[in-house]
Formats: sequence, C-alpha cells, structure tokens
Amino acid sequence: MSTLVAGGAGFIGKSLVQHFLDQGEKVLVLDNFCRGKREFLASLAPQKALTVLDCDLAQTEHTLRLVGDYHGKNPISAVWHLAANSDIPAGIADASVDLRDTFLTTYSLLLAMKTHGIKRLAFASSSAIYGEHQQTLHENLGPLLPISNYGAMKLASEAAISAAVESHLERAYLFRFPNVVGIPATHGVIVDFVRKLKATPQSLAVLGNGTQQKAYLHVSELLAAMLFIADKAADRLNCYNIGPADDGVSVRTIAETVCARVSPQAQIVFGQGDRGWVGDVPRFRYSVDKLAALGWQPKLSSAQAIARAVDEIASQEDA
Amino acid sequence: MSTLVAGGAGFIGKSLVQHFLDQGEKVLVLDNFCRGKREFLASLAPQKALTVLDCDLAQTEHTLRLVGDYHGKNPISAVWHLAANSDIPAGIADASVDLRDTFLTTYSLLLAMKTHGIKRLAFASSSAIYGEHQQTLHENLGPLLPISNYGAMKLASEAAISAAVESHLERAYLFRFPNVVGIPATHGVIVDFVRKLKATPQSLAVLGNGTQQKAYLHVSELLAAMLFIADKAADRLNCYNIGPADDGVSVRTIAETVCARVSPQAQIVFGQGDRGWVGDVPRFRYSVDKLAALGWQPKLSSAQAIARAVDEIASQEDA
Repeated sequence: MSTLVAGGAGFIGKSLVQHFLDQGEKVLVLDNFCRGKREFLASLAPQKALTVLDCDLAQTEHTLRLVGDYHGKNPISAVWHLAANSDIPAGIADASVDLRDTFLTTYSLLLAMKTHGIKRLAFASSSAIYGEHQQTLHENLGPLLPISNYGAMKLASEAAISAAVESHLERAYLFRFPNVVGIPATHGVIVDFVRKLKATPQSLAVLGNGTQQKAYLHVSELLAAMLFIADKAADRLNCYNIGPADDGVSVRTIAETVCARVSPQAQIVFGQGDRGWVGDVPRFRYSVDKLAALGWQPKLSSAQAIARAVDEIASQEDA
Repeated sequence: MSTLVAGGAGFIGKSLVQHFLDQGEKVLVLDNFCRGKREFLASLAPQKALTVLDCDLAQTEHTLRLVGDYHGKNPISAVWHLAANSDIPAGIADASVDLRDTFLTTYSLLLAMKTHGIKRLAFASSSAIYGEHQQTLHENLGPLLPISNYGAMKLASEAAISAAVESHLERAYLFRFPNVVGIPATHGVIVDFVRKLKATPQSLAVLGNGTQQKAYLHVSELLAAMLFIADKAADRLNCYNIGPADDGVSVRTIAETVCARVSPQAQIVFGQGDRGWVGDVPRFRYSVDKLAALGWQPKLSSAQAIARAVDEIASQEDA
C-alpha cells in the first residue's frame, strides 16, 4: 500500500510520513519546499520506502504526471493533503498566494485522483473557514464567511472535495485544524517570539494588545486525532473540528511562557488593538464535541501544549 | 455614476442592465458571450450609456485592463457579478469549467476592484452552496457541503468576497438564488422541455422520475428582491436567500405545464431515480424568512412563476 502525502516535508507532514512508514507503507511526498525541508525527511526510516519529489501542486499537469508515474508502479490507496500557504498575512496582501498554494493544490490533487482512480482523501482544513462568530464554532455552524484569503481558499477546498465525493471519491475527511504547535517548527507565534528574543533578549514586541486568544493543539495530538477519525468515521464525507477541549490561551500567556523559558529578564511590549493583522480572528470558542462523541479527546490543554512546544522550539532554535 | 455588470449579456444580467440604464446610470457590461447574447442588449436604451465588451473574466490581466480603462473615464461605483458557468452537468464532468467560469471570474473581479478602488459588490450566489440537507436551508445553516462543482465554486466565490470585505471592499451582497425562470431564456428545464416538444410533439422524455422538487422565482421578482436588499441591507457583508415562499414544484408539474401550453397531446415519459444528474439536489426547503424580515416578499408562488415563464418561453421559441 502506498500513501501520497502532499506537503509531506512540512511541520505536520513529517510526523504523518513517519507514521505511514512505521505502518510498513510506501510513501510519496510531494512538496514545493517553500516551508517544508528535505532535512525533516532525511532521518526517517526506512528511506527506501520513501519517495520525495519537488512539485508545485498548483501546476496541475505536472502534478498529474508525477502522481500517475508513481501510482503506476506503487498503487496509491489514499492522499493526505497538507499542502498550503501558511503565511496568512502574505495571502491577505496578495490573494494569488492562497489561490495558488491553498486552493489550486487541492484542485490539482482532486484531478489527479479522478484521473488515476484514487478514492480516499484526507484534507487539512482550518478553523479559519468559520470567520468571526460570536457563537461557539461547531461543525454545523453557518454562514461560513472567512476573513482571510487563507480561510477562503480552505473553504473553497472543502467545497471542491465535497463535490468530488458526490462524483468520484469514495471517502473523504475534512479535518478543521486549530493552531498547531510543536517541532520541527517552521513558522508561527512561538518561533517568532523565540527568534525575536534571541536577537533582542531585553524586550519582546508583540503585535496587538495580547488579548487575542486561540486554541492550540500539540502536533502529536493532532496526528493522533486525524488517524483516529480516519479509522472510526464511517460517512463518505467526514467533517471534524480538531482541537483542545478549552477556549485557548492568550497571546500574553504565550509571550510570558516564551520569555520565562528563553529570556526571563525580557520586558514584553504590547501593540494596539485586539488582532495581530487584518484577517486575524481575535477570539473564538471551538467545539470539539463531535470528535469527543466519536471517542477521542486530547490529553493536553492549550496551555500545556504551548508549554511543551515552547520548550521543544527553544531547544530546536538552540541547536 | 457607472455600474459594471459582469455577465450582463445573460438572462438575468439583461434585465439588471436595463434597470441601471433606467436610473440614468452608465453601464459597462463584461461578458464572454458563452450564454449571453449581444442581441439581448441591442434593444436597451439609451445605447450611448451602455458599453459592452467581450471579456473572459477568468483572464485576470485582461479583465484588470478593461476595468481600469473604463473606470479611468467613467468611475465605477459598484460591480454586479452575474457571470458563471450555468451548465451544472458540464461542470461536474470537467471541474475546470466551474473553476474558470464560476470562480476565477470572481477572483479577477475582486482583484480589479482592489486595484482600482471599487468598493461595492453584489454577487449572484446560489442555493447550490448548501448541498443536500434534511433541514430547511436558511442562511445560518452548516456545514456547507455542495455536491456539484458549480455549488463548490459559488461557495468559493462567497468565501473570497467575504475575505475581501475584511480587507478592501466597503459593502458586499451575497444573493443566494433559487432557480430563476423567465425570458430571455437561454437554458434550463423549461427551455429544454419546449424545444424537445417542438422536435417530437407526441412525447416528452424527462430525466429522473419527476419527483425532484425545486423552488422557482420569476426573473422580474429576483430583480426586485436584489435591488430591495441592495437598498435596505446595511451590514458590510449581507447574505440573503432569495426565493418564493413555498417549497417549490416538481419536475412533473413543470413537464405537465409545458405540455399543456405547447403540445397537449404529448405523453410524458419519466426516467429512473430522484435526480436528473449527478450533483442535482432532488428536494429541499428554502427559507426566505430573513428576506421577509427585511421587508420583501414575492408576489408569485413557484407554480405561478413557472406558469408565467412557460408562457413567455413558448412565445419566445415561437418567434
């Protein structure tokens, strides 16, 4: 059995690739190495079961050819699609970024799956599809009015997958991710703070007033949740929020946790307003009741996930 | 004041263009003339206030240039975006059709509006964004899991517009259309039935078993509803279902109405199954409570809208 992991050289992809290798599967990684790194995959074993190809998934014809060539020799039973732009502000400044990296990647993979008869797809969606709601974000909430192009193109991807289930896929999973932390960290608030403190240990400048609050899940738990859902959820199209069971932690708490670990003497300097950038959702409650009903619950709270990740990332950046 | 009507040479666009001309506005129509026809616009007055350009809106650079050239001389205050693929089965067979005509048209227009500082957008969305639900389709319903690429790319368009409201639009309207009937009819079930009966007056073959039931609105009422919402709805982003106040009529009823008008002796031959094609939603209840609360209600039922449109279309096809 072979599995295609799109974006498999990234932060989350790397752990997923290791999981499939551990299961004795062959794995094809397609990645454009924009955020992902070959070195993340270099230490995985067995290397002979792993094929890593440089592929801009927004290039539909090229993607079709690479998938077809591999699939002809090693039939692919499932696609895990984690490829996306992960720089949300960049996608707001220039909508073509998320069109290309967050949506056209999905479009190309769906066409490759249709063309080559690959029937199962797992997709990394996002809480960003919900936009700003006063209500708790549960899977049946609408309207879905995202406030970033990243969220918009994740929702576009969900919609295209939904239509593909009606026409050619046998099973699909839409995993609506929270913020995910852990290593190998390539981006995100913790990495930013650690690097800023290494440059200027006396002070940490924070975008916004620090009250933005978000739910965080550790990557190890995200992986466990996705695999649990893929094992247990039995609808043709399965849509699940994944996250911790709490309302998250504030940016202030994250800043304090990073300072305590990296530079205890640093003074934290907050900015103005309750969001870090246009398209940043300041605060939301995220329901994971549906996932709990399926039988999975996280072991770590948002604060515990942050604490573990801060320690891991500080060590990574020291190395 | 000038208004850009994208898809303005189409069935619904034509009536909208006439409305703006009647208001004394200048109108720029961009249309690829795939379904739309220049002749629909030839009789509108005053012609000197009307500029009609051939434009594939999926071609972003070309669209930007045409909009910029016109806007430089006649500042555009609002864009009405009605351009889309309207052949749903074609979009299911080939996903590139709706990517190009239903979504990239929106993407190009949003980029043109951002580039040229045009701040108001009205968008023809669709009940197809909801997919199949047992529940009544109201604006706050989720999840949104469309079953056609048409519905998927309409939802993608809504999402991109929502993100644009956060970053550069001042006001946007998402009109979720029901099935719309009237003249000048270019496609749809009534036209199909009328043309079939003209070819073979003794018998009418119907896709599916005739139990598919849908809500229909007459184009004159759709126009009134859109203009009412654009006048009264005051949020930055306004999302409204538009439709009749009933649960719709069955395909059987439509077939019988067409036969009675065009060929009373015809025998109706039904197919199998409760949907006409993959991606066809067989039956749904559509809530227009939000629109009623704003103060607008249709005068015609689905059955009355169908009866009027059948008469209009039969006359059109006789001409």
